[in-house]
Amino acid sequence: MYITQKEREAVYKTIFARRDVRSEFESKEIPNDVLMRILKAAHHAPSVGFMQPWDFIIVKDKDKKHQIKEAFKEANEKAIKMFDNEKRKLYKSLKLEGIMEAPIGICVTCDQSRNGPVVLGRTSIPEMDLYSSVCAIENLWIAARAENIGVGWVSIIDNKALQKILNIPKHITPIAYLCVGYVSSFRKNPELEEVGWLQREDLDRLIHYDQW
Amino acid sequence: MYITQKEREAVYKTIFARRDVRSEFESKEIPNDVLMRILKAAHHAPSVGFMQPWDFIIVKDKDKKHQIKEAFKEANEKAIKMFDNEKRKLYKSLKLEGIMEAPIGICVTCDQSRNGPVVLGRTSIPEMDLYSSVCAIENLWIAARAENIGVGWVSIIDNKALQKILNIPKHITPIAYLCVGYVSSFRKNPELEEVGWLQREDLDRLIHYDQW
Repeated sequence: MYITQKEREAVYKTIFARRDVRSEFESKEIPNDVLMRILKAAHHAPSVGFMQPWDFIIVKDKDKKHQIKEAFKEANEKAIKMFDNEKRKLYKSLKLEGIMEAPIGICVTCDQSRNGPVVLGRTSIPEMDLYSSVCAIENLWIAARAENIGVGWVSIIDNKALQKILNIPKHITPIAYLCVGYVSSFRKNPELEEVGWLQREDLDRLIHYDQW
Repeated sequence: MYITQKEREAVYKTIFARRDVRSEFESKEIPNDVLMRILKAAHHAPSVGFMQPWDFIIVKDKDKKHQIKEAFKEANEKAIKMFDNEKRKLYKSLKLEGIMEAPIGICVTCDQSRNGPVVLGRTSIPEMDLYSSVCAIENLWIAARAENIGVGWVSIIDNKALQKILNIPKHITPIAYLCVGYVSSFRKNPELEEVGWLQREDLDRLIHYDQW
């Protein structure tokens, strides 16, 4: 199947316009057919040995969200103490999640036992299954952006707490808790770039030829 | 920035048409501006705390490729022995890499020490930096597909061997070795689905509501 130049430009536009959203969520509900399109895109991510190790837990329940927010707060209190004085001030001024505001959360997991103990392509690098679930997350993120829906990855959270709140079995690994919803606007640049936390790296300096 | 319906359809078309390519590579060179567009898309992946931990090693050198192919062969000999009789026969019949045929290889890495020891968002889940590099890989993969270029992830390889061949420093983690090139055609479905290795999971069964 051939991708035309116009289609290619749409893909790049979407990739460059994708943001990690924390502050701009609106309460407007996501129609079910839209949500299913996004999840289908995630489901068509590459996976090692076609094992498709992912599951998706859609969180709309206010009480569950509240518990997740509390788990974030606890993890964030510990995080704050890790930064030096100047960075700590800036860190504390940042809004780092939109758990309560986003109409839905999506927890993406990895079932490392799916399709048996020996997986084609996972024989040398055991983390390949976790990486497959991450590919699904990035597909979901790009598909959501194509639907003008924002996504924010909440990584400041204890996975054991998340596992308990969402009743995730012990043999399943949580990979991400994503806040998902329509937004008032998408920022022109990543928020952490805008506030001067870090600058965009120079791509040329990250490219090597034939060896490091 | 608003994504139109036509643009959205182009994104979905590209996501669903993406394949893990092993057998269909052609020797035609990838123009440098095309390669740079793909790498720029990778560079605009989400990363924890905007740390952008990735590097890209472009491999065109025949001798380097040959060494990588040998490392694959060695890992694959070990892998073959792990499968039961029936699966082993099918496994051995599959072509699992296109290292020599693809005009370029791209090794994507993760520098876990980039931008200091304390990274915003990595304080609870240390693997977040590895996951960021995986997001870059998926962006690269989708961008390549939008350029009608195929990508295949060679995961049957010892990362220590790869590290040595490509002179990657010890503190840098190799995440993927990708074969990249134009193709004779893209398969309609994933190859492992076509040959009956595994079936596509039923998406409905992978979706949970409010808890597992």
